[in-house]
Amino acid sequence: MFSPLIDELIESLRCLPGVGPKSAQKMALYLLEREHKGADRLAGALRSALDKVGRCSSCRTLTEEPECSICRSEKRNNGVMCIVETPADVIAIESSGCFSGRYFVLMGHLSPIDGIGPDELGLDKLKNIVEYNNITEVIIATNSTVEGEATSYFIAELLKDLHIDVSRIAHGVPMGGELEYVDGNTLALALDGRKKL
Amino acid sequence: MFSPLIDELIESLRCLPGVGPKSAQKMALYLLEREHKGADRLAGALRSALDKVGRCSSCRTLTEEPECSICRSEKRNNGVMCIVETPADVIAIESSGCFSGRYFVLMGHLSPIDGIGPDELGLDKLKNIVEYNNITEVIIATNSTVEGEATSYFIAELLKDLHIDVSRIAHGVPMGGELEYVDGNTLALALDGRKKL
Ligand SMILES: [Zn+2]
Ligand SMILES: [Zn+2]
Repeated sequence: MFSPLIDELIESLRCLPGVGPKSAQKMALYLLEREHKGADRLAGALRSALDKVGRCSSCRTLTEEPECSICRSEKRNNGVMCIVETPADVIAIESSGCFSGRYFVLMGHLSPIDGIGPDELGLDKLKNIVEYNNITEVIIATNSTVEGEATSYFIAELLKDLHIDVSRIAHGVPMGGELEYVDGNTLALALDGRKKL
Repeated sequence: MFSPLIDELIESLRCLPGVGPKSAQKMALYLLEREHKGADRLAGALRSALDKVGRCSSCRTLTEEPECSICRSEKRNNGVMCIVETPADVIAIESSGCFSGRYFVLMGHLSPIDGIGPDELGLDKLKNIVEYNNITEVIIATNSTVEGEATSYFIAELLKDLHIDVSRIAHGVPMGGELEYVDGNTLALALDGRKKL
Protein backbone atom coordinates (compact mmCIF):
# COMPACT_ATOMS: atom_id res chain seq x y z
CA MET A 1 0.00 0.00 0.00
CA PHE A 2 2.49 2.57 1.18
CA SER A 3 6.20 2.16 0.47
CA PRO A 4 7.79 -1.05 1.87
CA LEU A 5 9.42 0.55 4.94
CA ILE A 6 6.19 2.30 5.91
CA ASP A 7 4.20 -0.92 5.43
CA GLU A 8 6.73 -2.75 7.59
CA LEU A 9 6.40 -0.10 10.32
CA ILE A 10 2.60 -0.42 10.21
CA GLU A 11 2.84 -4.20 10.41
CA SER A 12 5.32 -4.01 13.32
CA LEU A 13 3.05 -1.73 15.33
CA ARG A 14 0.40 -4.48 15.23
CA CYS A 15 2.40 -6.37 17.89
CA LEU A 16 1.17 -3.79 20.41
CA PRO A 17 -1.86 -5.00 22.38
CA GLY A 18 -5.12 -3.40 21.23
CA VAL A 19 -3.66 -2.02 18.00
CA GLY A 20 -5.53 -3.07 14.84
CA PRO A 21 -4.67 -2.29 11.21
CA LYS A 22 -6.32 1.13 11.18
CA SER A 23 -4.65 2.41 14.34
CA ALA A 24 -1.30 0.94 13.31
CA GLN A 25 -1.55 2.93 10.08
CA LYS A 26 -2.55 6.07 11.95
CA MET A 27 0.35 5.64 14.37
CA ALA A 28 2.96 5.01 11.66
CA LEU A 29 1.92 8.03 9.58
CA TYR A 30 1.68 10.22 12.66
CA LEU A 31 5.22 9.30 13.70
CA LEU A 32 6.64 9.83 10.22
CA GLU A 33 4.70 13.01 9.50
CA ARG A 34 5.23 14.83 12.75
CA GLU A 35 6.80 12.92 15.59
CA HIS A 36 10.32 11.95 14.54
CA LYS A 37 11.68 12.88 17.93
CA GLY A 38 9.22 10.69 19.79
CA ALA A 39 9.71 7.82 17.33
CA ASP A 40 13.47 8.06 17.78
CA ARG A 41 13.11 8.00 21.53
CA LEU A 42 10.76 5.01 21.29
CA ALA A 43 13.15 3.07 19.05
CA GLY A 44 15.96 3.68 21.54
CA ALA A 45 13.84 2.81 24.56
CA LEU A 46 12.70 -0.44 22.96
CA ARG A 47 16.26 -1.39 22.09
CA SER A 48 17.63 -0.61 25.56
CA ALA A 49 14.79 -2.34 27.36
CA LEU A 50 15.11 -5.43 25.15
CA ASP A 51 18.86 -5.57 25.63
CA LYS A 52 18.92 -4.97 29.37
CA VAL A 53 15.65 -5.76 31.08
CA GLY A 54 15.51 -9.25 32.52
CA ARG A 55 14.12 -10.88 35.62
CA CYS A 56 14.93 -10.09 39.23
CA SER A 57 16.96 -13.01 40.57
CA SER A 58 14.87 -13.05 43.76
CA CYS A 59 11.27 -12.14 42.97
CA ARG A 60 11.24 -12.65 39.16
CA THR A 61 9.79 -9.23 38.35
CA LEU A 62 11.08 -7.30 35.34
CA THR A 63 14.17 -5.20 36.03
CA GLU A 64 17.46 -4.27 34.38
CA GLU A 65 19.35 -4.87 37.66
CA PRO A 66 20.32 -8.34 38.89
CA GLU A 67 17.92 -7.73 41.76
CA CYS A 68 14.97 -5.30 41.71
CA SER A 69 14.81 -2.23 43.95
CA ILE A 70 12.22 -3.79 46.29
CA CYS A 71 14.30 -6.93 46.83
CA ARG A 72 17.41 -4.79 47.38
CA SER A 73 15.69 -2.51 49.89
CA GLU A 74 16.67 -2.88 53.53
CA LYS A 75 13.44 -1.29 54.70
CA ARG A 76 11.15 -4.14 53.72
CA ASN A 77 9.73 -6.75 56.07
CA ASN A 78 11.34 -9.82 54.60
CA GLY A 79 9.26 -12.22 56.69
CA VAL A 80 6.08 -11.59 54.70
CA MET A 81 5.72 -12.43 51.02
CA CYS A 82 3.01 -11.38 48.61
CA ILE A 83 2.60 -13.51 45.48
CA VAL A 84 1.25 -11.74 42.40
CA GLU A 85 0.85 -12.54 38.72
CA THR A 86 2.58 -9.59 37.07
CA PRO A 87 4.93 -6.63 37.63
CA ALA A 88 1.94 -4.32 37.19
CA ASP A 89 0.33 -5.96 40.22
CA VAL A 90 3.42 -5.15 42.31
CA ILE A 91 3.03 -1.51 41.34
CA ALA A 92 -0.70 -1.57 42.14
CA ILE A 93 -0.08 -2.98 45.62
CA GLU A 94 2.84 -0.63 46.25
CA SER A 95 0.60 2.33 45.40
CA SER A 96 -1.92 1.20 48.01
CA GLY A 97 0.85 1.76 50.58
CA CYS A 98 -0.44 -1.13 52.70
CA PHE A 99 2.20 -3.71 52.20
CA SER A 100 5.87 -3.56 53.14
CA GLY A 101 6.96 -7.14 52.67
CA ARG A 102 8.62 -8.82 49.72
CA TYR A 103 7.05 -10.08 46.50
CA PHE A 104 7.15 -13.08 44.29
CA VAL A 105 6.01 -12.43 40.73
CA LEU A 106 4.67 -15.47 38.89
CA MET A 107 4.70 -13.72 35.51
CA GLY A 108 1.42 -15.38 34.66
CA HIS A 109 -0.91 -18.00 36.05
CA LEU A 110 -1.32 -21.74 35.60
CA SER A 111 -2.70 -22.37 32.14
CA PRO A 112 -2.14 -25.94 30.96
CA ILE A 113 -3.68 -25.14 27.58
CA ASP A 114 -0.90 -22.59 26.95
CA GLY A 115 1.77 -24.89 28.34
CA ILE A 116 2.14 -22.80 31.50
CA GLY A 117 2.68 -25.10 34.45
CA PRO A 118 4.43 -24.85 37.84
CA ASP A 119 7.89 -24.71 36.20
CA GLU A 120 7.02 -21.71 34.04
CA LEU A 121 5.80 -19.84 37.12
CA GLY A 122 8.94 -20.67 39.11
CA LEU A 123 7.02 -22.46 41.85
CA ASP A 124 10.04 -24.60 42.83
CA LYS A 125 12.00 -21.45 43.41
CA LEU A 126 9.08 -19.96 45.31
CA LYS A 127 8.93 -22.94 47.68
CA ASN A 128 12.67 -22.75 48.12
CA ILE A 129 12.62 -19.08 49.06
CA VAL A 130 9.73 -19.57 51.47
CA GLU A 131 11.42 -22.56 53.08
CA TYR A 132 14.91 -21.17 53.55
CA ASN A 133 14.41 -17.43 54.08
CA ASN A 134 12.48 -17.20 57.34
CA ILE A 135 9.22 -16.32 55.63
CA THR A 136 6.46 -16.56 58.21
CA GLU A 137 3.52 -15.43 56.13
CA VAL A 138 2.55 -15.70 52.50
CA ILE A 139 -0.28 -13.67 50.98
CA ILE A 140 -1.50 -14.96 47.64
CA ALA A 141 -2.69 -12.04 45.54
CA THR A 142 -3.24 -13.64 42.17
CA ASN A 143 -6.15 -12.24 40.15
CA SER A 144 -9.64 -13.30 41.18
CA THR A 145 -10.21 -14.95 37.83
CA VAL A 146 -10.74 -18.68 37.36
CA GLU A 147 -7.05 -19.15 36.48
CA GLY A 148 -5.91 -16.92 39.34
CA GLU A 149 -7.99 -18.89 41.83
CA ALA A 150 -6.68 -22.20 40.51
CA THR A 151 -3.12 -20.93 40.76
CA SER A 152 -3.76 -19.73 44.30
CA TYR A 153 -5.14 -23.13 45.30
CA PHE A 154 -2.15 -24.90 43.77
CA ILE A 155 0.32 -22.67 45.61
CA ALA A 156 -1.51 -23.09 48.93
CA GLU A 157 -1.24 -26.87 48.51
CA LEU A 158 2.42 -26.58 47.60
CA LEU A 159 3.25 -24.62 50.74
CA LYS A 160 1.01 -26.58 53.09
CA ASP A 161 3.71 -28.79 54.62
CA LEU A 162 5.92 -25.81 55.45
CA HIS A 163 3.58 -24.88 58.31
CA ILE A 164 3.51 -21.14 57.77
CA ASP A 165 0.54 -18.78 57.47
CA VAL A 166 -0.75 -18.80 53.93
CA SER A 167 -3.59 -16.41 53.16
CA ARG A 168 -5.54 -15.34 50.11
CA ILE A 169 -6.16 -11.67 49.42
CA ALA A 170 -9.81 -10.90 50.31
CA HIS A 171 -12.46 -10.65 47.66
CA GLY A 172 -12.74 -6.92 47.96
CA VAL A 173 -11.32 -7.25 44.49
CA PRO A 174 -14.33 -7.61 42.16
CA MET A 175 -14.72 -11.16 40.83
CA GLY A 176 -13.28 -11.54 37.37
CA GLY A 177 -11.39 -8.28 37.83
CA GLU A 178 -7.72 -7.78 37.11
CA LEU A 179 -5.68 -6.60 40.05
CA GLU A 180 -3.84 -3.82 38.30
CA TYR A 181 -7.07 -1.93 37.55
CA VAL A 182 -8.31 -1.91 41.11
CA ASP A 183 -8.03 1.33 43.12
CA GLY A 184 -5.75 1.60 46.13
CA ASN A 185 -8.53 1.70 48.73
CA THR A 186 -10.11 -1.51 47.51
CA LEU A 187 -6.70 -3.12 47.46
CA ALA A 188 -6.06 -1.97 51.01
CA LEU A 189 -9.35 -3.52 52.16
CA ALA A 190 -8.63 -6.69 50.26
CA LEU A 191 -5.21 -7.03 51.87
CA ASP A 192 -6.62 -6.31 55.31
CA GLY A 193 -9.46 -8.82 54.99
CA ARG A 194 -7.27 -11.66 53.76
CA LYS A 195 -8.42 -15.15 54.75
CA LYS A 196 -6.20 -17.90 56.01
CA LEU A 197 -6.16 -20.85 53.59
CA MET B 1 7.55 3.14 39.52
CA PHE B 2 9.11 0.29 37.58
CA SER B 3 12.85 0.19 36.90
CA PRO B 4 14.22 3.19 34.96
CA LEU B 5 14.43 1.48 31.55
CA ILE B 6 10.86 0.20 31.84
CA ASP B 7 9.61 3.63 32.92
CA GLU B 8 11.41 5.16 29.96
CA LEU B 9 9.78 2.66 27.60
CA ILE B 10 6.36 3.46 29.05
CA GLU B 11 6.99 7.17 28.69
CA SER B 12 8.21 6.76 25.09
CA LEU B 13 5.12 4.83 24.08
CA ARG B 14 3.06 7.88 25.04
CA CYS B 15 4.19 9.57 21.82
CA LEU B 16 1.81 7.23 19.96
CA PRO B 17 -1.54 8.86 19.18
CA GLY B 18 -4.35 7.67 21.47
CA VAL B 19 -2.00 6.04 23.98
CA GLY B 20 -2.47 7.23 27.57
CA PRO B 21 -0.46 6.27 30.69
CA LYS B 22 -2.41 3.07 31.37
CA SER B 23 -2.19 1.68 27.86
CA ALA B 24 1.47 2.68 27.59
CA GLN B 25 2.15 0.66 30.74
CA LYS B 26 0.16 -2.28 29.43
CA MET B 27 2.02 -2.16 26.11
CA ALA B 28 5.48 -1.94 27.69
CA LEU B 29 4.88 -4.85 30.07
CA TYR B 30 3.28 -6.91 27.34
CA LEU B 31 6.29 -6.43 25.08
CA LEU B 32 8.79 -7.23 27.83
CA GLU B 33 6.84 -10.16 29.26
CA ARG B 34 5.93 -11.95 26.08
CA GLU B 35 6.60 -10.19 22.83
CA HIS B 36 10.37 -9.70 22.53
CA LYS B 37 10.29 -10.72 18.89
CA GLY B 38 7.62 -8.17 18.00
CA ALA B 39 9.33 -5.46 20.04
CA ASP B 40 12.61 -6.15 18.30
CA ARG B 41 10.94 -5.96 14.91
CA LEU B 42 9.24 -2.71 15.91
CA ALA B 43 12.50 -1.14 17.10
CA GLY B 44 14.13 -2.07 13.79
CA ALA B 45 11.20 -0.85 11.71
CA LEU B 46 11.14 2.48 13.53
CA ARG B 47 14.87 2.95 13.05
CA SER B 48 14.79 2.08 9.33
CA ALA B 49 11.75 4.21 8.63
CA LEU B 50 13.23 7.17 10.50
CA ASP B 51 16.55 6.83 8.70
CA LYS B 52 15.19 6.32 5.22
CA VAL B 53 11.64 7.57 4.75
CA GLY B 54 11.45 11.08 3.36
CA ARG B 55 9.25 12.94 0.92
CA CYS B 56 8.62 12.12 -2.72
CA SER B 57 10.38 14.78 -4.78
CA SER B 58 7.31 15.17 -7.00
CA CYS B 59 4.16 14.70 -4.94
CA ARG B 60 5.57 15.15 -1.40
CA THR B 61 4.09 11.92 -0.03
CA LEU B 62 6.11 9.77 2.38
CA THR B 63 8.46 7.31 0.68
CA GLU B 64 11.97 5.91 1.05
CA GLU B 65 12.61 6.35 -2.70
CA PRO B 66 13.52 9.69 -4.27
CA GLU B 67 10.17 9.45 -6.07
CA CYS B 68 7.16 7.41 -4.91
CA SER B 69 5.82 4.44 -6.87
CA ILE B 70 2.79 6.37 -8.16
CA CYS B 71 4.90 9.24 -9.49
CA ARG B 72 7.32 6.73 -11.07
CA SER B 73 4.54 4.72 -12.75
CA GLU B 74 4.19 5.05 -16.51
CA LYS B 75 0.59 3.91 -16.39
CA ARG B 76 -0.83 7.00 -14.73
CA ASN B 77 -2.63 9.81 -16.48
CA ASN B 78 -0.23 12.63 -15.78
CA GLY B 79 -2.57 15.31 -17.05
CA VAL B 80 -4.91 15.07 -14.04
CA MET B 81 -3.81 15.88 -10.50
CA CYS B 82 -5.59 15.13 -7.25
CA ILE B 83 -4.60 17.23 -4.24
CA VAL B 84 -4.95 15.59 -0.83
CA GLU B 85 -3.89 16.36 2.72
CA THR B 86 -2.08 13.18 3.72
CA PRO B 87 -0.48 9.95 2.43
CA ALA B 88 -3.41 8.03 3.99
CA ASP B 89 -5.75 9.96 1.68
CA VAL B 90 -3.76 8.77 -1.34
CA ILE B 91 -4.24 5.18 -0.21
CA ALA B 92 -7.96 5.75 0.37
CA ILE B 93 -8.45 7.14 -3.14
CA GLU B 94 -6.27 4.45 -4.69
CA SER B 95 -8.42 1.77 -3.03
CA SER B 96 -11.55 3.27 -4.59
CA GLY B 97 -9.97 2.42 -7.95
CA CYS B 98 -11.57 5.48 -9.56
CA PHE B 99 -8.59 7.71 -10.12
CA SER B 100 -5.58 7.10 -12.29
CA GLY B 101 -3.94 10.50 -12.35
CA ARG B 102 -1.14 11.89 -10.23
CA TYR B 103 -1.29 13.27 -6.72
CA PHE B 104 -0.01 16.21 -4.75
CA VAL B 105 0.14 15.63 -1.01
CA LEU B 106 -0.04 18.78 1.09
CA MET B 107 0.97 16.96 4.29
CA GLY B 108 -1.55 19.04 6.24
CA HIS B 109 -3.86 21.97 5.68
CA LEU B 110 -3.62 25.72 6.12
CA SER B 111 -3.57 26.46 9.83
CA PRO B 112 -2.18 29.90 10.62
CA ILE B 113 -2.47 29.26 14.37
CA ASP B 114 0.00 26.35 14.03
CA GLY B 115 2.26 28.31 11.70
CA ILE B 116 1.20 26.25 8.68
CA GLY B 117 0.92 28.52 5.67
CA PRO B 118 1.29 28.10 1.89
CA ASP B 119 5.06 27.49 2.19
CA GLU B 120 4.66 24.57 4.60
CA LEU B 121 2.17 22.94 2.23
CA GLY B 122 4.47 23.38 -0.79
CA LEU B 123 1.95 25.47 -2.69
CA ASP B 124 4.66 27.23 -4.75
CA LYS B 125 5.87 23.87 -5.90
CA LEU B 126 2.31 22.80 -6.61
CA LYS B 127 1.67 25.79 -8.83
CA ASN B 128 4.95 25.14 -10.59
CA ILE B 129 4.11 21.52 -11.34
CA VAL B 130 0.64 22.43 -12.57
CA GLU B 131 2.00 25.21 -14.75
CA TYR B 132 4.90 23.38 -16.41
CA ASN B 133 3.76 19.75 -16.61
CA ASN B 134 0.78 19.83 -18.96
CA ILE B 135 -1.73 19.37 -16.17
CA THR B 136 -5.17 20.01 -17.62
CA GLU B 137 -7.30 19.24 -14.59
CA VAL B 138 -6.86 19.57 -10.85
CA ILE B 139 -9.21 17.87 -8.37
CA ILE B 140 -8.97 19.24 -4.85
CA ALA B 141 -9.69 16.44 -2.37
CA THR B 142 -8.76 18.06 0.93
CA ASN B 143 -10.90 17.00 3.90
CA SER B 144 -14.37 18.51 4.15
CA THR B 145 -13.49 20.17 7.43
CA VAL B 146 -13.32 23.94 7.94
CA GLU B 147 -9.55 23.90 7.42
CA GLY B 148 -9.80 21.59 4.42
CA GLU B 149 -12.37 23.87 2.78
CA ALA B 150 -10.27 26.95 3.45
CA THR B 151 -7.23 25.24 1.98
CA SER B 152 -9.24 24.19 -1.07
CA TYR B 153 -10.43 27.76 -1.59
CA PHE B 154 -6.89 29.10 -1.28
CA ILE B 155 -5.56 26.61 -3.83
CA ALA B 156 -8.39 27.32 -6.28
CA GLU B 157 -7.52 31.03 -6.09
CA LEU B 158 -3.82 30.25 -6.54
CA LEU B 159 -4.44 28.26 -9.72
CA LYS B 160 -7.10 30.58 -11.17
CA ASP B 161 -4.87 32.41 -13.62
CA LEU B 162 -3.50 29.17 -15.10
CA HIS B 163 -6.81 28.63 -16.91
CA ILE B 164 -7.14 24.92 -16.26
CA ASP B 165 -10.07 22.95 -14.85
CA VAL B 166 -10.02 23.08 -11.09
CA SER B 167 -12.69 21.06 -9.30
CA ARG B 168 -13.53 20.19 -5.73
CA ILE B 169 -14.33 16.60 -4.74
CA ALA B 170 -18.12 16.33 -4.25
CA HIS B 171 -19.65 16.36 -0.81
CA GLY B 172 -20.51 12.71 -0.90
CA VAL B 173 -17.89 12.79 1.82
CA PRO B 174 -19.81 13.49 5.05
CA MET B 175 -19.26 17.03 6.35
CA GLY B 176 -16.64 17.14 9.05
CA GLY B 177 -15.45 13.70 8.01
CA GLU B 178 -11.88 12.70 7.39
CA LEU B 179 -11.18 11.32 3.96
CA GLU B 180 -9.20 8.30 5.02
CA TYR B 181 -12.15 6.84 6.93
CA VAL B 182 -14.59 7.04 4.03
CA ASP B 183 -15.43 3.82 2.18
CA GLY B 184 -14.44 3.31 -1.46
CA ASN B 185 -17.96 3.62 -2.89
CA THR B 186 -18.57 6.96 -1.26
CA LEU B 187 -15.19 8.14 -2.47
CA ALA B 188 -16.02 6.98 -5.98
CA LEU B 189 -19.30 8.97 -5.92
CA ALA B 190 -17.53 11.97 -4.49
CA LEU B 191 -14.91 11.92 -7.25
CA ASP B 192 -17.54 11.45 -9.91
CA GLY B 193 -19.76 14.30 -8.66
CA ARG B 194 -16.89 16.81 -8.39
CA LYS B 195 -17.88 20.42 -9.01
CA LYS B 196 -15.90 22.93 -11.05
CA LEU B 197 -14.66 25.78 -8.90
ZN1 LIG C 1 12.89 -8.53 43.09
ZN1 LIG D 1 5.18 10.92 -5.54
